[in-house]
Amino acid sequence: MTDRTVVLHVSYDGAGFSGFARQPGLRTVQGELEHALGVVLRQPVEVVGAGRTDAGVHALGQVVSFPATGAEPPLESLSRSLNALTGEDLVVASASFAEPGFSARRSALAREYRYFLVPGPVPPLFTRKTAWWVKRPLNLDAMRRAAEHLIGEHDFAAFCAAESLGKGSTFRRLDLIEIASDREMGEHVVVVRVIGNAFLHSMVRIIVGSLVEVGLGRKDASWLGEALQSRKREAAGPTAPAHGLTLWHVEYPEECWL
Amino acid sequence: MTDRTVVLHVSYDGAGFSGFARQPGLRTVQGELEHALGVVLRQPVEVVGAGRTDAGVHALGQVVSFPATGAEPPLESLSRSLNALTGEDLVVASASFAEPGFSARRSALAREYRYFLVPGPVPPLFTRKTAWWVKRPLNLDAMRRAAEHLIGEHDFAAFCAAESLGKGSTFRRLDLIEIASDREMGEHVVVVRVIGNAFLHSMVRIIVGSLVEVGLGRKDASWLGEALQSRKREAAGPTAPAHGLTLWHVEYPEECWL
Repeated sequence: MTDRTVVLHVSYDGAGFSGFARQPGLRTVQGELEHALGVVLRQPVEVVGAGRTDAGVHALGQVVSFPATGAEPPLESLSRSLNALTGEDLVVASASFAEPGFSARRSALAREYRYFLVPGPVPPLFTRKTAWWVKRPLNLDAMRRAAEHLIGEHDFAAFCAAESLGKGSTFRRLDLIEIASDREMGEHVVVVRVIGNAFLHSMVRIIVGSLVEVGLGRKDASWLGEALQSRKREAAGPTAPAHGLTLWHVEYPEECWL
Repeated sequence: MTDRTVVLHVSYDGAGFSGFARQPGLRTVQGELEHALGVVLRQPVEVVGAGRTDAGVHALGQVVSFPATGAEPPLESLSRSLNALTGEDLVVASASFAEPGFSARRSALAREYRYFLVPGPVPPLFTRKTAWWVKRPLNLDAMRRAAEHLIGEHDFAAFCAAESLGKGSTFRRLDLIEIASDREMGEHVVVVRVIGNAFLHSMVRIIVGSLVEVGLGRKDASWLGEALQSRKREAAGPTAPAHGLTLWHVEYPEECWL
């Protein structure tokens, strides 16, 4: 018997899932992974995920972990077996071992989300399922000035889904908001990279929804600082749609890996 | 009455279409565009496309043209009206005017296709509908050496779908085959850019299918030159799947545009 932890790096297209967290009778990422792991390992498995993504939210670098039992197949064949069992919209990119007690959720140092926006009058085609078409031009400089107000450790209560307030501390640390023009499959997109230690429920989507208010000229950049200080959900902007958001990467201490 | 030509730049996701060319009872790009144009312009319209893409092949920069009647709405509202009528998998990116007699097909100087490959054991996720997962590593240098044999003006009969041979000249001019590693939505892809004056039926897909034979080590680079010289379809490699191919861009003489 070993007490190592098995860690999976997982990608998924959020459109076909009712979010990450297991829910009876619904197709979820956790449910589909635990089912496939149960078939391959021939025993019930409960996984922990780094980010509990909402329905419709995608992941490129979601991380999940579960305790090793000593009976695992070799890691490469574990990925292959899982990919043969999951739908093509859920991919296990790699499997590795971490130290005993490692938890994809608790051990994470930082999480990076990316939100894709398509400005302008032309609807997106290849990016239509991973980007929010905002239909008008965006002032990226104004969005960057607004974003500066959020960097650092703050009470982000104004940027938490109302139904999840009052369930613990709303202090979080935001390390980076980077807003850049880029191309995906030849289409012009605006990428909002958001890195922080951890995120409240819908926090990235409310930040992006608020930044878009500024980018469209409906609010000025300083408004975002005032919304933050108010600690009131209604002071911030609307929640951006789920399908534009992707959990991109999760960072762990180097020494966790075996 | 004016005799200008209306030109549309069109993107589409090939999955939902039985190819570009109109066919009774089937959903095609030409059929859907002509239907939408008929509704907006209140008269029957026949369009000409720069590339008759096969079923499943995508386009970022397909170009179609039709004679102006003098009764068109302003160009910007024409795009918007058409996009409101087509499915979300067919987008009119812009509309413009070209000189009388302009034809999206006959006036084209060069066409660029891009073919996306995903090597290695991890299935693609975000790129699964626009790239061919070849499952093993690809030797890009060997593919580049093989591609050199095809550059220039040649009889490409060996790279033409068998059912379309004997329907005219099989001489074409290939200007560029560039093979590069890149990322789309964070996923590693190999992009094969192919530029030429015009292409035979399935020519890009047979070229890519042959380059992949070399990249996987099943054939050496000089084999591709021998296949070309044989002028026999069976001497070249298999036809790569349609869903990895995108008509990327079509080049016209600058002076065509009004």
